[in-house]
Amino acid sequence: MPKFSIGVDLGGTNLRIAAVDEHGTLLERVSLSTDVSLGPHYVIKAMCESIRQLDERYRPTGELAGIGIGVPGIIDPETALLREAENLPGWAGVPVQAEIERQLGTRVVLENDANAAALGEKWLGAARDFDDIAMLTLGTGVGGGLILGGKIWRGMSGMAGEFGHMTIDWEGIPCSCGSRGCLEQYGSATAIIRIAKDMARKDEASEIFKTACSAPDFNAKCVYDLAAQGDQQAQEIFHSVGRSLGIAIADLVNAMNLPIYVIGGGVSGAWDAFAPSLFEELRQRSAVYAATEPSAEREPSSKKAKRKTLITRALLGGEGGLYGAARLPVVSGL
Amino acid sequence: MPKFSIGVDLGGTNLRIAAVDEHGTLLERVSLSTDVSLGPHYVIKAMCESIRQLDERYRPTGELAGIGIGVPGIIDPETALLREAENLPGWAGVPVQAEIERQLGTRVVLENDANAAALGEKWLGAARDFDDIAMLTLGTGVGGGLILGGKIWRGMSGMAGEFGHMTIDWEGIPCSCGSRGCLEQYGSATAIIRIAKDMARKDEASEIFKTACSAPDFNAKCVYDLAAQGDQQAQEIFHSVGRSLGIAIADLVNAMNLPIYVIGGGVSGAWDAFAPSLFEELRQRSAVYAATEPSAEREPSSKKAKRKTLITRALLGGEGGLYGAARLPVVSGL
Repeated sequence: MPKFSIGVDLGGTNLRIAAVDEHGTLLERVSLSTDVSLGPHYVIKAMCESIRQLDERYRPTGELAGIGIGVPGIIDPETALLREAENLPGWAGVPVQAEIERQLGTRVVLENDANAAALGEKWLGAARDFDDIAMLTLGTGVGGGLILGGKIWRGMSGMAGEFGHMTIDWEGIPCSCGSRGCLEQYGSATAIIRIAKDMARKDEASEIFKTACSAPDFNAKCVYDLAAQGDQQAQEIFHSVGRSLGIAIADLVNAMNLPIYVIGGGVSGAWDAFAPSLFEELRQRSAVYAATEPSAEREPSSKKAKRKTLITRALLGGEGGLYGAARLPVVSGL
Repeated sequence: MPKFSIGVDLGGTNLRIAAVDEHGTLLERVSLSTDVSLGPHYVIKAMCESIRQLDERYRPTGELAGIGIGVPGIIDPETALLREAENLPGWAGVPVQAEIERQLGTRVVLENDANAAALGEKWLGAARDFDDIAMLTLGTGVGGGLILGGKIWRGMSGMAGEFGHMTIDWEGIPCSCGSRGCLEQYGSATAIIRIAKDMARKDEASEIFKTACSAPDFNAKCVYDLAAQGDQQAQEIFHSVGRSLGIAIADLVNAMNLPIYVIGGGVSGAWDAFAPSLFEELRQRSAVYAATEPSAEREPSSKKAKRKTLITRALLGGEGGLYGAARLPVVSGL
């Protein structure tokens, strides 16, 4: 009997659940408009109900390999408690895993969502065939996941992969983490909007100002659209995003010398706008990268090229975390 | 029969060889005033002769577990060739390992010297009982070694651990690596001398100026001595060393969340002068560190404290690389 698993991506605003077969084929995908802010009790109940329904639907034709759940927070590696979850108010310290297991009557695997996304890209996306992977997710904030030797690298206290708080500019913009000049202040969607609004305020004749005033929901995508249309100020913003990413990734390349760095999250959709500056900065900042840069003519087959450093965008888009969650029970040996 | 191994620390200026028993006790230590610049042919011959002598001396009472050699360069993980060796002119591309094995008629293990030093600290020094270790060596340059899961982490192309080229100040001092603002430009002995000389030039009434003019061999130790005597300008130099180390280590803590970071090399002798600024910067720059900082009262037993991040100075001084080299054959399973 073929196997399938169930993955859950618990976001700050919605909850997605999918049944995925062992080859990565999506069997079914459920999106619950669950208001996560209603708290863990309510959300866990709705989640378990959906999981049970999916399980019942696919159990006749397949064997359930397990259930994996990606959450936007730090999971204590010893107690499996959710330690910190900025986007899930009221969830910290809740025995999420134990409660889900109690309701479902079976074991589940809980994992940080950025690690789950990295695992998804390793399974079905940009990092297939790689065992050592760093993934940066550029969204509201900048998150990160690390896979070393084929296994998720959680670090001593489950906090590894905080790439968003690496220092880009030591005297730079203050960050909510208490530091200043963090990557998150230059490479996130939030940063793009902040920089664009600063520009708009300074230049009321600019396209950015006009767009910021007219767009009802002015966001990073609006800035990207302006850049794509040739607006120089908007392009400059993405150059700065690329430079900051180049500095951070150069640090990672110099420190760990991994074969692949995957960039995901909503901002990765602006790849063509920021990638040239990223690579320019990276080449200057890392002799290790310069010595292992894939040559242009080999680019199409470069994934097979040995000992080349690949910097690439995620292939699974917003689904990486969901697929990765479904993969969790398999790699955890549950 | 007890086992012993032979370690070699091949430096840019001298060559040290030691026989060490399986418990880490030094049996004998030989220092050859070999002029490394005479080239690989000459040096390898002298090295092999000394190794043979040590072997003959201890073979009657012990079994040779193997021979390990630490070299100041990048070793290609596939071919075991020395790829780059700034301090060993004429050595790059030489089949060092093969040649030594041919002359000795037995296998040897070649390793980057910073990795060997990290291994030494893991075996007998500051990082005993730890499996995940980052080591920074502050000398003429800033090197680094990484041990993950108990094994040396060489990275895809043998270039991991280039902590000296992590960006501290993105618009900072140009570095020989092609980047600017690298840690090496702020945290090495070379940097300390450069900053001190800059200060001296600007202030001819300063103690630094007087010392720089009178000391026949003005070096980082002279600056440290001034700082220890209370000279404020000299102290400021070490504050800046500490801040730059704090920024780099914060990046490493945020990215990898390891339990221990060991600081070695000659400059680590100035620990009391730079450590306060290092910790101050680190606390601000890394929420991960702040959440895992050993509390003061637990400090003495903090090595046993679970899930605390330790930043500590190396215990083996300049011998770490030599002991680590002797440990290489054992951990390599040779």
